[in-house]
Amino acid sequence: MTESVFSPSGVITFTTDFGHKGPFIGAMKGAVLKRFPSAVLLDITHETSAHWPAEAGFWISRSFDYFPKGTVHVAVVDPGVGSERDILVVVSRGHCFLAPDNGLLTPLIKQDDQALCFCLKLDNVPGVSLSEVSRTFHGRDIFAPVAGELAKGSLVPEELGVVKTDLVPSLLDEPEQQANAVSGVIVTSDNFGNLISNIDAGMIQEFGFPVCEVAGHRMPFYSTYARVKPGEYLALINSFGVVEIARSEQSAALGLGLGRGAPVRVVNETS
Amino acid sequence: MTESVFSPSGVITFTTDFGHKGPFIGAMKGAVLKRFPSAVLLDITHETSAHWPAEAGFWISRSFDYFPKGTVHVAVVDPGVGSERDILVVVSRGHCFLAPDNGLLTPLIKQDDQALCFCLKLDNVPGVSLSEVSRTFHGRDIFAPVAGELAKGSLVPEELGVVKTDLVPSLLDEPEQQANAVSGVIVTSDNFGNLISNIDAGMIQEFGFPVCEVAGHRMPFYSTYARVKPGEYLALINSFGVVEIARSEQSAALGLGLGRGAPVRVVNETS
Amino acid sequence: MTESVFSPSGVITFTTDFGHKGPFIGAMKGAVLKRFPSAVLLDITHETSAHWPAEAGFWISRSFDYFPKGTVHVAVVDPGVGSERDILVVVSRGHCFLAPDNGLLTPLIKQDDQALCFCLKLDNVPGVSLSEVSRTFHGRDIFAPVAGELAKGSLVPEELGVVKTDLVPSLLDEPEQQANAVSGVIVTSDNFGNLISNIDAGMIQEFGFPVCEVAGHRMPFYSTYARVKPGEYLALINSFGVVEIARSEQSAALGLGLGRGAPVRVVNETS
Repeated sequence: MTESVFSPSGVITFTTDFGHKGPFIGAMKGAVLKRFPSAVLLDITHETSAHWPAEAGFWISRSFDYFPKGTVHVAVVDPGVGSERDILVVVSRGHCFLAPDNGLLTPLIKQDDQALCFCLKLDNVPGVSLSEVSRTFHGRDIFAPVAGELAKGSLVPEELGVVKTDLVPSLLDEPEQQANAVSGVIVTSDNFGNLISNIDAGMIQEFGFPVCEVAGHRMPFYSTYARVKPGEYLALINSFGVVEIARSEQSAALGLGLGRGAPVRVVNETS
Repeated sequence: MTESVFSPSGVITFTTDFGHKGPFIGAMKGAVLKRFPSAVLLDITHETSAHWPAEAGFWISRSFDYFPKGTVHVAVVDPGVGSERDILVVVSRGHCFLAPDNGLLTPLIKQDDQALCFCLKLDNVPGVSLSEVSRTFHGRDIFAPVAGELAKGSLVPEELGVVKTDLVPSLLDEPEQQANAVSGVIVTSDNFGNLISNIDAGMIQEFGFPVCEVAGHRMPFYSTYARVKPGEYLALINSFGVVEIARSEQSAALGLGLGRGAPVRVVNETS
Repeated sequence: MTESVFSPSGVITFTTDFGHKGPFIGAMKGAVLKRFPSAVLLDITHETSAHWPAEAGFWISRSFDYFPKGTVHVAVVDPGVGSERDILVVVSRGHCFLAPDNGLLTPLIKQDDQALCFCLKLDNVPGVSLSEVSRTFHGRDIFAPVAGELAKGSLVPEELGVVKTDLVPSLLDEPEQQANAVSGVIVTSDNFGNLISNIDAGMIQEFGFPVCEVAGHRMPFYSTYARVKPGEYLALINSFGVVEIARSEQSAALGLGLGRGAPVRVVNETS
């Protein structure tokens, strides 16, 4: 077997838009256990925006490093399932990632110029062939068995396919850096209605007096929610390193009527 | 101990209508671990229609085989909890199933004329007695400890009770096969709004040109969602082997205003 | 290392108000596994009322004993995250509990006059320092690593901080016991719409003919849901030992238009 740069820990995470109705997540995990009975199975989330790979990719690129090195991360937001789209196997910073080639992993790959990216060829996966798998649930029939073998160490990423460099671009534009401002968008909200943008903390770290502009409001930055009174709005750098708009003990998403795609701007009040 | 036809893998799955509010699922799993600390615990789903055992039974009968042989499947959709209804222990195709005798497992048992079906007698379960368990949460107080012992191999299905043959019938009628048509119903929808029927692929496999009729619409069959444009309707054989009505990248359930119980018909357009 | 009264089983439970959107629960579990790869991770619930520690504390105090002795229970309902609020480490009845000092654990501690309660000092946790953790996600950055070390047995509760006795009071008043009546409130509802009160079964056990009064209705007590016809209301002692108002096969919460905070009274119809 080829020596691999990836050394598996036995942990597998799942990120999908499947929600929790029906046996879809369970059947994926069952298919993993058939290949690798001692796998450690963790959910990242199954409630990303349906049919929109960008949110899943955003969360994976921001959260993967909180899992042990050697984790296999499976992401299935896959409106093109059963069509001709490719499947990617990526190794980056000690973790391995499996996802459709639909832009989902593009932000993650861009973070790391050492990332290795392979195009999965099913001939290299014993017991899985395209003519026998379902046309609508590759999560269970392809991603799960491949993840099980990778986490077990019985397949290595380097042997799963040829290197791929022409990836489908991300569905989310990068924030635009100007002289004294950064413009981005809301990617998603959390259970509390906090609005989470794609503006990385690093893009505004030189700003002496950053102020967040969103939907005609101007919000100051604070370190945490409890620094303002319940019901007041604030901006902050959240625990995943991006700009977030919050309302203390309430929902900013409901209060402002905003969600995915809404423009956000951070300006530096220099004087 | 009696030799059993069931050889446990240590895996236990859970299917309920409990949702995710409150400690109900967690307490069931805790009760398993008290009996069998190294159990591998998987959720199938906890979002089946409340008080309606048919959906849970449908998904279990369609998904159990994606889990390792030797899995114990616990299904608790149990409006009669604490009343005189029986509890069934079923062994079929290398898996073991526990559920109330309310029709939930009847479709699964009908699939397999080798299935063994026992009526649980609590006297056979050390440390569990009806006078001491709660009247409203047998999932935690009866199903979980029994599942733990079965998965551990310290109890065997054959010793848990006497054979039972007069089962409560399924709450869901079988689809009706006509000369050039099959009539069934929608059982449930998934997170994407795909409408999932009880018409098995095998019932229409001889149809040269199947067309799906639902709510006044006529839908052609395609192999997968991406074969039509976003927003268009289609029918397909889904990954669990039944007829499904979908709308590419949108919700057929919302678009058609349909759900559980809606009639579906597949006709063979022979000329 | 100090001899501890707490003997870990390796099991960790999680109770939060995070919901299932985003990577929050997954990242907490990942952070545990980095410290303790063989931890057994269970969810109690992630759907308690947002920003309201009382519900999480209610469920933990009522459900912890269904998990194996030696379990570490992590509860994160934490509107004060990143402010000056303390973090508590509690040992009670063979279990260990971690939560912010915001009243969440106060009912649990009151149940047991042998409970030990320590105020977490981060200096005692190798690799975790307040200057380096996020200001908004102590669940991942403090609670998870501490829970991992406690479950692994490499840290003991007694060494994590000094004894604390002046706790933030519970956000929920205790029920009021009168001569022939008990007055309490609805704490939460479950997925079926059953309304769950804070009135303990023990407070009404001497009542010969208890009747539950809620929102102008008077409801008799039955042993279980199936003892009345579908659609009828009833009161019962539920499987966690408190008074519950239910509607057979329907939702009492929707039917009565009631939820958290609604007053409930049980009277003894003595003649």
